[in-house]
Amino acid sequence: MTLVACIGGGQLGRMLALAGIPLGLRFRFLDPSPEAPAGEVGELVVGAYDDPAALARLADGAAVVTYEFENVPVEAACAVAPLPPPLALELGQDRLVEKQLFQRLGIPTARFGSLEQAGLPALVKSRRLGYDGKGQRRLAAPEALGEHELAEEIVPFERELSLVAVRGRSGETRFWPLAENVHRDGILRVSRAPAADAPQADAEALVTRLLDKLDYAGVLALELFEVEGRLLANEFAPRVHNTGHWTIDGAVTSQFENHLRAILGLPLGPTEAFAPAVMLNLIGGAPPLDRLLGLPGAHVHLYGKEPRPGRKLGHLTLVGAQDETVAEAIELVETAAEG
Amino acid sequence: MTLVACIGGGQLGRMLALAGIPLGLRFRFLDPSPEAPAGEVGELVVGAYDDPAALARLADGAAVVTYEFENVPVEAACAVAPLPPPLALELGQDRLVEKQLFQRLGIPTARFGSLEQAGLPALVKSRRLGYDGKGQRRLAAPEALGEHELAEEIVPFERELSLVAVRGRSGETRFWPLAENVHRDGILRVSRAPAADAPQADAEALVTRLLDKLDYAGVLALELFEVEGRLLANEFAPRVHNTGHWTIDGAVTSQFENHLRAILGLPLGPTEAFAPAVMLNLIGGAPPLDRLLGLPGAHVHLYGKEPRPGRKLGHLTLVGAQDETVAEAIELVETAAEG
Repeated sequence: MTLVACIGGGQLGRMLALAGIPLGLRFRFLDPSPEAPAGEVGELVVGAYDDPAALARLADGAAVVTYEFENVPVEAACAVAPLPPPLALELGQDRLVEKQLFQRLGIPTARFGSLEQAGLPALVKSRRLGYDGKGQRRLAAPEALGEHELAEEIVPFERELSLVAVRGRSGETRFWPLAENVHRDGILRVSRAPAADAPQADAEALVTRLLDKLDYAGVLALELFEVEGRLLANEFAPRVHNTGHWTIDGAVTSQFENHLRAILGLPLGPTEAFAPAVMLNLIGGAPPLDRLLGLPGAHVHLYGKEPRPGRKLGHLTLVGAQDETVAEAIELVETAAEG
Repeated sequence: MTLVACIGGGQLGRMLALAGIPLGLRFRFLDPSPEAPAGEVGELVVGAYDDPAALARLADGAAVVTYEFENVPVEAACAVAPLPPPLALELGQDRLVEKQLFQRLGIPTARFGSLEQAGLPALVKSRRLGYDGKGQRRLAAPEALGEHELAEEIVPFERELSLVAVRGRSGETRFWPLAENVHRDGILRVSRAPAADAPQADAEALVTRLLDKLDYAGVLALELFEVEGRLLANEFAPRVHNTGHWTIDGAVTSQFENHLRAILGLPLGPTEAFAPAVMLNLIGGAPPLDRLLGLPGAHVHLYGKEPRPGRKLGHLTLVGAQDETVAEAIELVETAAEG
């Protein structure tokens, strides 16, 4: 039985296992929390991500080691030779290094660097460990930046898009249709895929440069802004991604299954969408299950977590749904999130 | 967290759990084998199906108890009040009683009973505990039947069909498209759904009589012969069914998810097919995973069992595949089954 080891045991690890168990795979996770959501579908090693003994226990007997979040300590990760390659972690963990990489590869970005380079008003971000909008502030007037801060031009974008891509160990690459995403308070609320009138080919060309440069294996997501018909890269995540959750129910092969196929050297599956999909995150609180399942075409994914403000508890995907169903779902989900 | 208890921990239980974990459900299984396939995705109580203490441990704290095979001892099952209702078990476990039920409900069958009633040549079956063709023989000349045997007319049917249906606790009923099935040596080899030019409405009318009579909740499969445009009922199974496995990848809601929705009193999901699906059982041996996953549109489901002649190790579903892909898959699967 092939064992897959995963650094991190959150919902992404849980969904990886749910996709991989039917392929005959077994899973082991490393997570500091004994309540980690992936513990229900695999063995759980409770320990710190940088504890060499815990990492060794995680990797023991595994056919491959992977990770489900991008802030894994790089040095520790290197000891277990994960896929995607640790270089992707290293380059992605520092926003400045990440943007410089985009620049070197000719992938357009907003202006970035010092306040002078970004211009005012600017978004100031910590270079490391920011996610879901944490560690960000908006500056309208000059101010000294911290040593570990980075300024970015505030781009008047029309919409946020993301491209989820997968590259196999032999270099074969596939792309799901672009998703259009809505964030609020820095947290993803809604993804719609395929995004209408989207520059699919342009986005694929950009992400291909990145995948090839990194000699990548696995799923990678590139977040983009669309501004007057141009694409600007915002950031990449070297892992399965929240804006690709719709693929479980809306695409021929999900991002989770293809990530596993890729890192195990298996053939990749088709990435076509069956029908338009809308994915809604369940944040802070979730509506009653019978209300969610009563929505035509609804697929519910709960992560087994206790409710807490701002916490992603699950997601709902509507496949091929009518506009009024989507509107009803959004209201249901938002009411529960506030409650 | 809602706990679902299941008598039997085979592949059907395993696939129930894989469908139910995303709904936030937890699973516990009762199985005599510590190697039961469902043990990877839920808690496993190792014990006999008719051991009152084991059944009590199984049911402790469960929101609902269900079963994944039809030969559960009825008296033992009654003690844990399962859904589907134990009456379905009782009537289905004895082929004579089952056929008499069909007769009372006006559901056409082949002739059955004594050799005189069935006519010659006849198929002689044990009334109980026969499955996958075991306990059957063909008679061309008169012979005394055993006390627990039943004769059935051998029907020159054009094809075997099956209707998988689901009925909710409130009586709401849905049907997946009819599947066309090919058995060999009494074991299901291939299911194709939706079956071409199939008498869907006729089949739905027949199964509805059965579901309503049993005040049924959950998934039920009715196996049918098509003879000169008429449908003859062969047998029913009060559970998720091998001829419905294609619904995991080929229908909006799978039989596994809808079984859980039904027994928990949740709204049922749509049963439409996305595209034509072909399901192949992997019996005795399975082709290498990379060969299977290299088939366009292939979805692989392995059950975590050791290979053994005649054993169902997994299944492969091809969704929307070309004829040549299906032919290639059949050859691949049959070669591995012989090997």
